[in-house]
Amino acid sequence: MLLIFPSGSVFFFTDGRYKTQAHEEIKDAKVVIGQRSAMVSAAEWLGTRRKGAKLKLKLGIEGDHLSVAERRRLVSQLPMHISVREAPPLTERARMIKDADEIALIRDAVRAGAELFDVAVDSIRPGTSEVEVAAEMEFAARKVGTDGMSFETIIASGVRSALPHGRASRALIAQGFVVCDFGVILHGYCSDRTRTVYVGSVTEDARRVYGAVLEAQLAAIDAVRPGASVGSVDQAARKVLRKNGLAKYFTHSTGHGVGLEIHEAPRVAKGQPELLHPGMVITVEPGAYLPGKWGVRIEDMVVVTEHGCEVLDPTQKEFIVI
Amino acid sequence: MLLIFPSGSVFFFTDGRYKTQAHEEIKDAKVVIGQRSAMVSAAEWLGTRRKGAKLKLKLGIEGDHLSVAERRRLVSQLPMHISVREAPPLTERARMIKDADEIALIRDAVRAGAELFDVAVDSIRPGTSEVEVAAEMEFAARKVGTDGMSFETIIASGVRSALPHGRASRALIAQGFVVCDFGVILHGYCSDRTRTVYVGSVTEDARRVYGAVLEAQLAAIDAVRPGASVGSVDQAARKVLRKNGLAKYFTHSTGHGVGLEIHEAPRVAKGQPELLHPGMVITVEPGAYLPGKWGVRIEDMVVVTEHGCEVLDPTQKEFIVI
Repeated sequence: MLLIFPSGSVFFFTDGRYKTQAHEEIKDAKVVIGQRSAMVSAAEWLGTRRKGAKLKLKLGIEGDHLSVAERRRLVSQLPMHISVREAPPLTERARMIKDADEIALIRDAVRAGAELFDVAVDSIRPGTSEVEVAAEMEFAARKVGTDGMSFETIIASGVRSALPHGRASRALIAQGFVVCDFGVILHGYCSDRTRTVYVGSVTEDARRVYGAVLEAQLAAIDAVRPGASVGSVDQAARKVLRKNGLAKYFTHSTGHGVGLEIHEAPRVAKGQPELLHPGMVITVEPGAYLPGKWGVRIEDMVVVTEHGCEVLDPTQKEFIVI
Repeated sequence: MLLIFPSGSVFFFTDGRYKTQAHEEIKDAKVVIGQRSAMVSAAEWLGTRRKGAKLKLKLGIEGDHLSVAERRRLVSQLPMHISVREAPPLTERARMIKDADEIALIRDAVRAGAELFDVAVDSIRPGTSEVEVAAEMEFAARKVGTDGMSFETIIASGVRSALPHGRASRALIAQGFVVCDFGVILHGYCSDRTRTVYVGSVTEDARRVYGAVLEAQLAAIDAVRPGASVGSVDQAARKVLRKNGLAKYFTHSTGHGVGLEIHEAPRVAKGQPELLHPGMVITVEPGAYLPGKWGVRIEDMVVVTEHGCEVLDPTQKEFIVI
């Protein structure tokens, strides 16, 4: 728990398990090691320190990162003159715009993550299980020195490719699309990418849907520029899919911010008014999911530049048949 | 989001991404696919359905699993006559006691997880990085068909072994202890185990501390029986470490419940009054951490039986030198 005073003093609370690590890693904050949970320690410390205070104090909390129960425990530990209220999403807003150092780190993460697709292509064979493919990718990710995966690897084959969030299962790969959605964490920053390949003899329909999703993704990337709303990026993808009769099969939003966390602001979704600014890093990942049949998704991470955007480490997106 | 009425009707809310999966996997509940987030959909649905109602309704939420911001959004969507309050931890209490089917599944997870220690012992060599060891273990876990790791694998070598939560880093293994804390998820249930090995020529001190931690762990296991408080289990471990002058180096609690989640109730900590009941599954994991030097932790999962407890899949705990 971090306690920040308007004066600029910052205190970091943790417990004995993290004593050495906190003293090594925490800069620009005083470390307080408590006997109880970080939050109870912070509340007790604040209560003691502000005992004599007559002034009413307001303590702002991050509503998206504190549970209702934690808030209750916090309030019960605080003296009467300290009131708790939800602060505006200051951290989320600040983190939306990445500085040059952050973009360099994200670039490294994206590059390390991108290589895993080659591993996937080498592993995907009829009769191989989805988890075996995920295992090879995760092993490779560790071997190149990443801190691990940024989310549970999605390897969704056959009818499972129609599940937008089909994490790798024991299902065996057979004819049809295989959606590979994966990312790594490197130096704290996340990567996120999706490629979809086809196994077996290709149908006309498969080529058509793949082509439409790719066209939608390129149109959405084209719409990414400073001053454009995230809703217009979503709209650009949706428009292409609508033209191809696939609008109703695109059942999620077009993308999201990425950084220290895999899902950050902004949410690139229908009707969202947030405007793009240079330094924002977002995913562009339209898809089409035909229930009981198969699905396609193509995803890149892009950084908003002064005049448009740059696809981070662009790699091929043509139709791959295995 | 699950909405449960006193009448016994149950409704499950999700969005379009999970449509197929929800219809396949959800039993005993009506599935409602909403256009917006699951929570907003549930609130809107409840508002519409209860529009004509004159009766005041109370909606209980799980305070540990809903953020302050989510609660605010929920309340803003609900009609005036529905009030929101924190429900008692019904799910957590119900899940504390595992039935025979659950214990069988946990046994399978523990067995699959235990095998990874052999992989660790084979990989741990001077000059190998901690993440390489973790990579080999995680690869093996996937290969044997688990759903993945139940938490970030801890491989903490040398001075890093004194960090109770030292997740595998790029540090190279050298002389001293290596704490290996790892677990898998199999059929939804988690395993959790710690073994500590020694690399290089052994000091008298290392043997002494290892012996004391092992003695503490066995004493704590011995204290696990129906009717005993979890605090007494913690106390049993602490007593042995105190006798050996190591009490102040044991900086965390003795254990926690495990099941569908890696950390469940009860918390096996100092002074906790919760009484043990047959069917509870807990970890017993005392340790000693000498900052700047090294640390030792030994952990097993045990199930409380009618007359005592059973260590799930007991494997060797003698001092291993690599």
